[in-house]
Amino acid sequence: MPDKVLIYSRLPKSLTQRFAGRFDLLDSGGKPAHEVFPADEVAQIRALITAGGTPLGAADMDRLPALGAIVCYGTGYDGVDLKAAAARNIAVGHSPGANAAAVADVAVMLMLATTRRLTVADAYVRDGGWASAKPSPLMKPPPSLAGCKVGVYGMGEIGRKIASRVAAFETEVGYFNRTRYDDLPYQYFPSLDALAEWCTVLMIAVRASAETTHVVNADLLKKLGTDGHIVNISRGSVIDERALVAALKEGTVAGAGLDVFETEPHAPDELTSLPNVVLTPHIGGNTRESHVAMQACVVANLTAFFGGEMMPYQVK
Amino acid sequence: MPDKVLIYSRLPKSLTQRFAGRFDLLDSGGKPAHEVFPADEVAQIRALITAGGTPLGAADMDRLPALGAIVCYGTGYDGVDLKAAAARNIAVGHSPGANAAAVADVAVMLMLATTRRLTVADAYVRDGGWASAKPSPLMKPPPSLAGCKVGVYGMGEIGRKIASRVAAFETEVGYFNRTRYDDLPYQYFPSLDALAEWCTVLMIAVRASAETTHVVNADLLKKLGTDGHIVNISRGSVIDERALVAALKEGTVAGAGLDVFETEPHAPDELTSLPNVVLTPHIGGNTRESHVAMQACVVANLTAFFGGEMMPYQVK
Repeated sequence: MPDKVLIYSRLPKSLTQRFAGRFDLLDSGGKPAHEVFPADEVAQIRALITAGGTPLGAADMDRLPALGAIVCYGTGYDGVDLKAAAARNIAVGHSPGANAAAVADVAVMLMLATTRRLTVADAYVRDGGWASAKPSPLMKPPPSLAGCKVGVYGMGEIGRKIASRVAAFETEVGYFNRTRYDDLPYQYFPSLDALAEWCTVLMIAVRASAETTHVVNADLLKKLGTDGHIVNISRGSVIDERALVAALKEGTVAGAGLDVFETEPHAPDELTSLPNVVLTPHIGGNTRESHVAMQACVVANLTAFFGGEMMPYQVK
Repeated sequence: MPDKVLIYSRLPKSLTQRFAGRFDLLDSGGKPAHEVFPADEVAQIRALITAGGTPLGAADMDRLPALGAIVCYGTGYDGVDLKAAAARNIAVGHSPGANAAAVADVAVMLMLATTRRLTVADAYVRDGGWASAKPSPLMKPPPSLAGCKVGVYGMGEIGRKIASRVAAFETEVGYFNRTRYDDLPYQYFPSLDALAEWCTVLMIAVRASAETTHVVNADLLKKLGTDGHIVNISRGSVIDERALVAALKEGTVAGAGLDVFETEPHAPDELTSLPNVVLTPHIGGNTRESHVAMQACVVANLTAFFGGEMMPYQVK
């Protein structure tokens, strides 16, 4: 009999169908399992698949008494209370790097789109403004990327792929990361403040955690400056969204490209009504190849767990 | 007395003000000079500044009897009848390479935006579709760029900058160009057909001319294939726009990112109503630095001409 695996987050069927052949999936559609499945079935659940950003705390774990493995679909695991999992001897796995290229692509797309004002430009063509010689919303030419200072916050697999892509645009690349890497050809800054002071475009690629919550606040945005742009493909929690909205409205910063938000799937109205932002619905890792790679990590983690072995992609 | 210079195309004042201090500008706002200025003044015009794509034929030249220099603002000069100019001993200048980085940036932006469906994604967030869990228009994950075959048509300064940027996305880069360059690390294809057959994303960076008019036609788009995307930052004339619209509607190709159109500033309604295109109003070279560089070329060309010397950036 196949092992039972709970689908803990609301995940599209198209993403979980690959697991259905291997495991007996209990998909609660994002609801708590005990509200959807009978107690005796819930009691047998030894493993679950979750989206890393979905809250999964001690109380949630306690409702799944047989739980031994939490497997995150994707690289993030910020929703999982790692201490609570460790205290219950629950292993946590993820899919490191599997989506790094796809996420880095979206980061660069958002950087280009916010600095060159792509959505405003597209609307100007589509609504006939250009054809009828209406005053262009693009009259003030933006600075070139060539020679521009781009700061990358977080130098994990995604940060590295962002940096190597951005460098090809003839930019200067700097970074801040807890660890300094001497093998990287980019300028190191000892703090996020120093990086923001230096750069014009700030790319957020840091792993979300309690320490990084709201580190991008009003003060930091001021350091970025009125010509500054911010791009976030990490987690919404890293940016104080209210402070960002205020800065975008007041012109403290020039623009933002955001793939992630504080309370997904909700992007606040104050944000969605702004012209100087480009917004995408957390599509960073959403490519065919990165789904295949992430699913392979999930299967490998679950197979190892049910085989009594350590997960190959375990969170340390 | 400063030399008289006609502003031949409709150009924003913000772009021509740098010339006003050096030359006596006659700005006809895009109308024929003889309709706006007295005949004796028109007869004194020895030089003009034009946007390279604006038609400037033998008859236009003959209405400016003293004309000795045509100076294109930007790299293109496809609107200028070079034979007619040569026959009248009129030198033609341009601004080669000055905007190459800025144009290449837009090319990559359009590549990312069409493959990752940026404008559809932005609209899905802004109109509340994501927040209210409406079926996502992005459910089908697109292929990753990493490993994708990108073809560059035209390997001049802009094509080279496109290729070096695109390569940083872990793509395979191929190109077709009249001349094969052995110093380039990209695969060479002996024809545009062969390139289109091979690649998934086709980037048009060829110089527009009579030979390249409508070389991207229905047959070529079929070679690109149903997964294929096309990006054009060169000139609208290179693509048979009707054939492209038909291919986009029928799904013969997947999407397009266009900064240039056949009859600018008009983008046809059949194009602007499509969801699988990203459209920008010829903003390729529109950055502060590239305007400064293009203006420096214009000033250098005009200064040399009025000084009786050969223009430093003369079209051969």
